[in-house]
Amino acid sequence: MYVIIVYDIKVERVNKVKGFLRKHLYWIQNSVFEGEVTKSELEEIKTGLLDIINKKDDSVIIYRFRTDDAFTRKVLGVEKAPINGIL
Amino acid sequence: MYVIIVYDIKVERVNKVKGFLRKHLYWIQNSVFEGEVTKSELEEIKTGLLDIINKKDDSVIIYRFRTDDAFTRKVLGVEKAPINGIL
Repeated sequence: MYVIIVYDIKVERVNKVKGFLRKHLYWIQNSVFEGEVTKSELEEIKTGLLDIINKKDDSVIIYRFRTDDAFTRKVLGVEKAPINGIL
Repeated sequence: MYVIIVYDIKVERVNKVKGFLRKHLYWIQNSVFEGEVTKSELEEIKTGLLDIINKKDDSVIIYRFRTDDAFTRKVLGVEKAPINGIL
């Protein structure tokens, strides 16, 4: 399956979240990651994030799709990570 | 169609972007909006954003779907905007 993860994390934990997500997904924009994952990888990601974040202060949204055919992506302005070239 | 818009905008323009997107979509998280739009509304949103942002500094990603059935949304931590209650 394919996931888009967006987060709003307090500054003291944001690098830890970024470092963790980089192991599993592609960095797309300041606080956005994307990528293809298996079901068990997704569980690993959720568990890992819950270990890092403070549930009262931080917020992570995981959008899940069957495949990346489910959407189109259009960038206005700076294309920070050239994912179209990677995938 | 349904859109998710995520942005990374310099602080001096971020409130203008937020105010503009609020007119068309639901605020979901710090820099994430979502909502159902028509094709012409989406064009209006793109044009409006391009008027506000600095294309060399700012970045906006528009994910477009046929409907919101295309994905599931899971929130870890703070659920900032109770969109499930709204829609």
